[in-house]
Amino acid sequence: MSEKTEIKVFAGTGNPKLAQAIAEWLEMPLGEVAVSRFPDGETYVQYEESVRGADCFIIQPTCDPVDTNLVQLLLLIDALRRASADRITAVMPYFGYARQEKKDRPREAVAAKLVADVLSAAGADRVIALDLHADAIQSFFNIPVDHLTARGMFADFFEQKKLENVVIVSPDEGRVKQARKLVRQLNAPLAVGYKHHAFHGHTEITDLAGDVKGKIPIILEDMITTGGSIIECVDALLEHGAQPQIYVAATHGVLAASATDRLQNHPAIAEVVITDSIPLPPDKQREKIKQLSVASMFGEAIRRVNQDMSISSLFD
Amino acid sequence: MSEKTEIKVFAGTGNPKLAQAIAEWLEMPLGEVAVSRFPDGETYVQYEESVRGADCFIIQPTCDPVDTNLVQLLLLIDALRRASADRITAVMPYFGYARQEKKDRPREAVAAKLVADVLSAAGADRVIALDLHADAIQSFFNIPVDHLTARGMFADFFEQKKLENVVIVSPDEGRVKQARKLVRQLNAPLAVGYKHHAFHGHTEITDLAGDVKGKIPIILEDMITTGGSIIECVDALLEHGAQPQIYVAATHGVLAASATDRLQNHPAIAEVVITDSIPLPPDKQREKIKQLSVASMFGEAIRRVNQDMSISSLFD
Amino acid sequence: MSEKTEIKVFAGTGNPKLAQAIAEWLEMPLGEVAVSRFPDGETYVQYEESVRGADCFIIQPTCDPVDTNLVQLLLLIDALRRASADRITAVMPYFGYARQEKKDRPREAVAAKLVADVLSAAGADRVIALDLHADAIQSFFNIPVDHLTARGMFADFFEQKKLENVVIVSPDEGRVKQARKLVRQLNAPLAVGYKHHAFHGHTEITDLAGDVKGKIPIILEDMITTGGSIIECVDALLEHGAQPQIYVAATHGVLAASATDRLQNHPAIAEVVITDSIPLPPDKQREKIKQLSVASMFGEAIRRVNQDMSISSLFD
Amino acid sequence: MSEKTEIKVFAGTGNPKLAQAIAEWLEMPLGEVAVSRFPDGETYVQYEESVRGADCFIIQPTCDPVDTNLVQLLLLIDALRRASADRITAVMPYFGYARQEKKDRPREAVAAKLVADVLSAAGADRVIALDLHADAIQSFFNIPVDHLTARGMFADFFEQKKLENVVIVSPDEGRVKQARKLVRQLNAPLAVGYKHHAFHGHTEITDLAGDVKGKIPIILEDMITTGGSIIECVDALLEHGAQPQIYVAATHGVLAASATDRLQNHPAIAEVVITDSIPLPPDKQREKIKQLSVASMFGEAIRRVNQDMSISSLFD
Amino acid sequence: MSEKTEIKVFAGTGNPKLAQAIAEWLEMPLGEVAVSRFPDGETYVQYEESVRGADCFIIQPTCDPVDTNLVQLLLLIDALRRASADRITAVMPYFGYARQEKKDRPREAVAAKLVADVLSAAGADRVIALDLHADAIQSFFNIPVDHLTARGMFADFFEQKKLENVVIVSPDEGRVKQARKLVRQLNAPLAVGYKHHAFHGHTEITDLAGDVKGKIPIILEDMITTGGSIIECVDALLEHGAQPQIYVAATHGVLAASATDRLQNHPAIAEVVITDSIPLPPDKQREKIKQLSVASMFGEAIRRVNQDMSISSLFD
Amino acid sequence: MSEKTEIKVFAGTGNPKLAQAIAEWLEMPLGEVAVSRFPDGETYVQYEESVRGADCFIIQPTCDPVDTNLVQLLLLIDALRRASADRITAVMPYFGYARQEKKDRPREAVAAKLVADVLSAAGADRVIALDLHADAIQSFFNIPVDHLTARGMFADFFEQKKLENVVIVSPDEGRVKQARKLVRQLNAPLAVGYKHHAFHGHTEITDLAGDVKGKIPIILEDMITTGGSIIECVDALLEHGAQPQIYVAATHGVLAASATDRLQNHPAIAEVVITDSIPLPPDKQREKIKQLSVASMFGEAIRRVNQDMSISSLFD
Repeated sequence: MSEKTEIKVFAGTGNPKLAQAIAEWLEMPLGEVAVSRFPDGETYVQYEESVRGADCFIIQPTCDPVDTNLVQLLLLIDALRRASADRITAVMPYFGYARQEKKDRPREAVAAKLVADVLSAAGADRVIALDLHADAIQSFFNIPVDHLTARGMFADFFEQKKLENVVIVSPDEGRVKQARKLVRQLNAPLAVGYKHHAFHGHTEITDLAGDVKGKIPIILEDMITTGGSIIECVDALLEHGAQPQIYVAATHGVLAASATDRLQNHPAIAEVVITDSIPLPPDKQREKIKQLSVASMFGEAIRRVNQDMSISSLFD
Repeated sequence: MSEKTEIKVFAGTGNPKLAQAIAEWLEMPLGEVAVSRFPDGETYVQYEESVRGADCFIIQPTCDPVDTNLVQLLLLIDALRRASADRITAVMPYFGYARQEKKDRPREAVAAKLVADVLSAAGADRVIALDLHADAIQSFFNIPVDHLTARGMFADFFEQKKLENVVIVSPDEGRVKQARKLVRQLNAPLAVGYKHHAFHGHTEITDLAGDVKGKIPIILEDMITTGGSIIECVDALLEHGAQPQIYVAATHGVLAASATDRLQNHPAIAEVVITDSIPLPPDKQREKIKQLSVASMFGEAIRRVNQDMSISSLFD
Repeated sequence: MSEKTEIKVFAGTGNPKLAQAIAEWLEMPLGEVAVSRFPDGETYVQYEESVRGADCFIIQPTCDPVDTNLVQLLLLIDALRRASADRITAVMPYFGYARQEKKDRPREAVAAKLVADVLSAAGADRVIALDLHADAIQSFFNIPVDHLTARGMFADFFEQKKLENVVIVSPDEGRVKQARKLVRQLNAPLAVGYKHHAFHGHTEITDLAGDVKGKIPIILEDMITTGGSIIECVDALLEHGAQPQIYVAATHGVLAASATDRLQNHPAIAEVVITDSIPLPPDKQREKIKQLSVASMFGEAIRRVNQDMSISSLFD
Repeated sequence: MSEKTEIKVFAGTGNPKLAQAIAEWLEMPLGEVAVSRFPDGETYVQYEESVRGADCFIIQPTCDPVDTNLVQLLLLIDALRRASADRITAVMPYFGYARQEKKDRPREAVAAKLVADVLSAAGADRVIALDLHADAIQSFFNIPVDHLTARGMFADFFEQKKLENVVIVSPDEGRVKQARKLVRQLNAPLAVGYKHHAFHGHTEITDLAGDVKGKIPIILEDMITTGGSIIECVDALLEHGAQPQIYVAATHGVLAASATDRLQNHPAIAEVVITDSIPLPPDKQREKIKQLSVASMFGEAIRRVNQDMSISSLFD
Repeated sequence: MSEKTEIKVFAGTGNPKLAQAIAEWLEMPLGEVAVSRFPDGETYVQYEESVRGADCFIIQPTCDPVDTNLVQLLLLIDALRRASADRITAVMPYFGYARQEKKDRPREAVAAKLVADVLSAAGADRVIALDLHADAIQSFFNIPVDHLTARGMFADFFEQKKLENVVIVSPDEGRVKQARKLVRQLNAPLAVGYKHHAFHGHTEITDLAGDVKGKIPIILEDMITTGGSIIECVDALLEHGAQPQIYVAATHGVLAASATDRLQNHPAIAEVVITDSIPLPPDKQREKIKQLSVASMFGEAIRRVNQDMSISSLFD
Repeated sequence: MSEKTEIKVFAGTGNPKLAQAIAEWLEMPLGEVAVSRFPDGETYVQYEESVRGADCFIIQPTCDPVDTNLVQLLLLIDALRRASADRITAVMPYFGYARQEKKDRPREAVAAKLVADVLSAAGADRVIALDLHADAIQSFFNIPVDHLTARGMFADFFEQKKLENVVIVSPDEGRVKQARKLVRQLNAPLAVGYKHHAFHGHTEITDLAGDVKGKIPIILEDMITTGGSIIECVDALLEHGAQPQIYVAATHGVLAASATDRLQNHPAIAEVVITDSIPLPPDKQREKIKQLSVASMFGEAIRRVNQDMSISSLFD
């Protein structure tokens, strides 16, 4: 792949604002592609400029409506393949179905593996993703996956706040590894929430490992869905004596149901920092919810992929 | 595949009523499978009974919401495969994206081929379909496809009406082949609608080949989407002197937008016969719209597939 | 694919004259490849120059002897793949088995899909085809297919004739879509042949939709095999009052059996225009049969594919 | 798969004793297969009885020497495939390379996914595994994987000991989910080890969440490699006041380097319970190391797979 | 595959007489399948009876016309697959293109591998072959290949002749391994022809290793193509003092060009024994050419494959 | 593949000295890659420099320990693929399992085909090999294989010796084809060893075809494993009157068991010439064993592959 291969960046309808911001960072216009829906709900896509021999990137998070965004992405890939694109990269700031990445009970599907398989079947040559819910999803692919993280952006964000006496909190055991990296970046101690039964047979409660008394917690998550587990973690922190000034940093603001109100209305939550991997529509915007942009990170990644420059040296 | 292999029939959420009717025809209960959606719009499926070694059929038309129904079908297939089903048949009374079966313009996707590919990638061993929009879709698969047709049901329906002086009408050249078969079954003449320009550069109009004067037309279609082309055909029939007692027979009642009202309110339309391949919700039900059930046809097909009996001898 | 990638064009034995003409248009010699047959009928191929890293095109229509030409094409592809060609394009001016593109009856093969599958299995990276009998064949492939058409050449040809009072005729419903495009290019009205039974149970006859009285018909077809359906169409045109000066334009001159004599000897046929997609051996040449060359069209397509330039902007 | 399909069980050289025990549980002899090595280190396999149409199981953990055992397993599968076995199940009591299941650093391999891919490429139809290091490995396959666990056996073992005041310990966040299930089975509280820095920049230490003071800990692990992390956990438990009577339950006794001596010689370790998923050679046998047999569990699983009976109802 | 699976045997047009003989041995009629050719040379196949769930065998040697027979076989497989056959076995008494099984010179194809690949791509589940020109061809497949040999039939044939003082001759190094097996069966010594240059730079001649003086040679070959190398071998045998009573045993009588006359007219050739793997048309029949039938061998193999009985115990 | 694509050459642990020599010939350093083993015997690989878009070559003979070297090679390929290498070439100076390239007995594996399949499954784009034991192995791949030979080096070596009255000896029929090429290069006669039974039922002995009396033999082999067949050949040569000054030229010095001593101690063996395709550790070095380096040949091949230059013109 010589650096002379023309780069073309297209946007699905999953997050047009982010796509536009990435294009601006790259100082190039988004490629022309028409995406529309027929009255019966079927999606139709057509590229309105030649893509022959081009190094094509499709920006499409598979956020809600997840199935529509996913099928649209598959159609966008298929059309590129048939139109002789040289290389097709699915840029997925949010990777839907990531939580179904293994069988927890008999006779379930493994949706995340299925998504990986159909992306390859449609013709994707590579994937760029952000803070996948499970690292193993990267392994589901046999094509290269560049796995970016917003953790560095969160570290910068909190460093500029110059908070004192901070503690990094992983709300459960699943995020400990990532939290530990933030611990290193912010030079702060770690606390981990875990669920257990104080007395046998009693209700499950969320307990905390690590000292949080008098500290300002920063809860690190990959996504906020209904906000339920965040609220549980916040309450557990307060019970263990943390300051009622609690920060939440989560890459993906899924914010389903009444998540925004629950977060906004909790008196101990100081601020919830998310990224623009998923659009934040006006009705979900709240004062305490702060959105950082991953546009420059994705722009830089796209540029480096196109020019065969290392990405690992940049991120992580 | 010995006839002793246990048969299990499951329903997605695409058309539960038809699935129930098929199960009743087969005199067996539908298999237990839980299909639910998370607050963020992702689908979750789990079979609640063992499927090991069973000959499994999933009834799921990919009608509106097409992408949701399609992804659900893929998940249902994936879970069966991982749970050691012996054979997995996707029973698709309606096959969404069928109209995007070829590139008409540059840089389009071929959605119907993509759907065929991802069904195979998910693990489907065979497909049962009904009046596919294009015969070529059957060829997209390398797995066996049993392609049923409602034409015989329509022929019976109109024979019982004992209408006199009937003409079978294909509204455009795409349905001529199917119409010709109905012509044979009903022993009636044929007329074909086709679009042309009466004078060069003027608006395209729908003209008619074949004599319809004084005749009672039966328009044969595979699907009614917005009803627009049906109405055009009806009007052309009237202009050419057909009786204002026009019947429409279409397998799939997509009935998007205001199709139902347009059909109901047209004075020359006597009756619109569709099947229950797609659910007809109460708000789309109209006096003139008559729904025939394909449950027995699908039930018989499933039984024959399970028992390795010929299907071609039954249908067509 | 940078434009610096060396282009190499090779010819199978299917149509050496056309291959030579394409090479001349490209102002480059045909690549050296030996194709021979052993006494037992097996084909042997060997490239006699290095193809490493080259952008290779094999010109091979799969016309009669279709199986021999097809297997030869597969061998030519296989040898290129093993010899480290960078990209392999099967240039198929005529695509044999195209009429078996769907199952019309139970337990048939779908030969056209099989051909698509084995071309991919042998290692073809892309295909260039001309006026495929069915558009769906393009969809059978998951590799890019550039689908050229001779319709523009036919339009130019008839425009230069400055015929007055022309009507474009599709001999059956299968060619209506293509005929409609020629209608636009020649600004002429359309007529469509269709088969029906004037009285029930009687012999099938070919009728005509559209006004042809006193007009000069141009029948558009994709191929002429035995000439039978053309003759039927010509006779129907005469019955409906068309002028006994009828033109036929068909991309592929298969001309099996006594097709050439039937066309030549019909008094109402003025001229039959075909292309050189298939060789026209001396014993098939007749005065009324005019052959246009697609060499420049294929040459231009090859050049553009090699240089990653849009093809859709050129053709259609 | 009818229950009449003959079952055949073969053993690789990875764990002949376990294979023999499984065969005895099944009350059938092991199938005849010769596995040998040439002087140059290459493995040769040959089945010495017909396997046509049989439901074949190969018992082969890919423990040390892992590469030899893996390649041998691939050869055993390949030979079955070529000899017309009806179904091939790789029974892997230990799945080597399981810890390399995701990229933790740039430019690593994902060995566990590679192993899954080559098992499928060789012709395995299904896999039976035991306590995989990461659940995601099950998702790497598109063939069915039955994932057994020794947790129930450990629960029974400790219940029979009638220990009082027990606490279940997950040595790190990776085993919390499994530990939580043991908590339910033994009705005991949970403690979780996690690594952190007491003071920033200082050495990483292992701390504990949950109350262990005066309690008898049962540490749950999937495998013991060098024993290092177990010892760290034991020491942390003692520091937090646990009784110096500590039990370790780990499915896979890899026991590399001086692991056995380290465990045997630690005064606070009361007993180390492992299974016979991996052979325990005489030089690794120690008084404190107790081996439970998974033979009956695998035997039952093989019988149920052969008879299409549910496995999930038995285990977990 | 239970033994209750219905067996169906079909014949392509490659060797209808052998197919008929096999069916008679099996005491069952050949299945109904129509194979025809269109005027343009394309083949059309349709099964005229249901094949659902059946264990189907297609008897089709890919002898001359090799490409036509090969493509026909692919179509026959494809149609079975689409018609829901349970298992498809390509029974190939002669495997065309077998001599192109490796690259001897740069930029050749490997036709035999291509044939193996396209048979699998078309949907063959297994292959039964006879005396493949190279053993490696069996390895080209990942599906099971049952490789029969006529060597036992030849041994019986010559044993019954009760010839004295016989020597088994491999005409070149390629057949030594097979000849050695015949040596064991007939308890006779071995001689091997090999080509060399008596004096450097002079013409290549065929020399002989092993003592043939006064002996009656039986030359063993897998096929006779033009007869050239057989004649060379015969002449070399005479030069080395063999008796002018030379037998030739070759499984496949390709007999291209004037092979039959060359063999018939050579005074030292006593008899040429071939099999009916390839049809021997009347114009190729000669007095010295004796054809043994492989019908019972193929019949027995088909029966055993269907019933999951070992084939190796029968042959070789 | 433009010649500007950066070349990177990496070494597995199979033959570091040869890898270093190749890199020196190419005048470039070996790429940085860490290959290590965990205490439990599992291999871990990580590239320590970016490989994005690079044309990567991995030098790794799969000699003893063959399974470890093979799995390591697969891991090295997998890691390159996931790290976005542009092209991955497995450079295999020795290809292990090459002797298991066909089924000689029922129910064997075809290990060489399995190796080819898993190399492709892991992501290899091409292979460079040296004197494969069987030419057919090249055909097992559908990716390009450049098959080098040391025969030219051996020819040069013996020409410089200016031996008189030389005879080229193939120790069995398997090497005759290669020996014949050396015959042409050295302008010497040929002799071929073959095994037979002097008297029926007696022990098999090695006999010789061709005149060796008073000649100096050069035995050509592809590999020396235990040396047994070489010794047999040497003894047969002496029995037939060859001079007791016998040379052996074998590409691959596997030299298992006591091969080195057997060769060194045989009085009639003058010299054994092998290459450095496999490391020759100090304990295997003997006075009579002479090692030629294939470093320049592999270096030149790598350079030409990278620059899309013909390799066939160089070698063979």
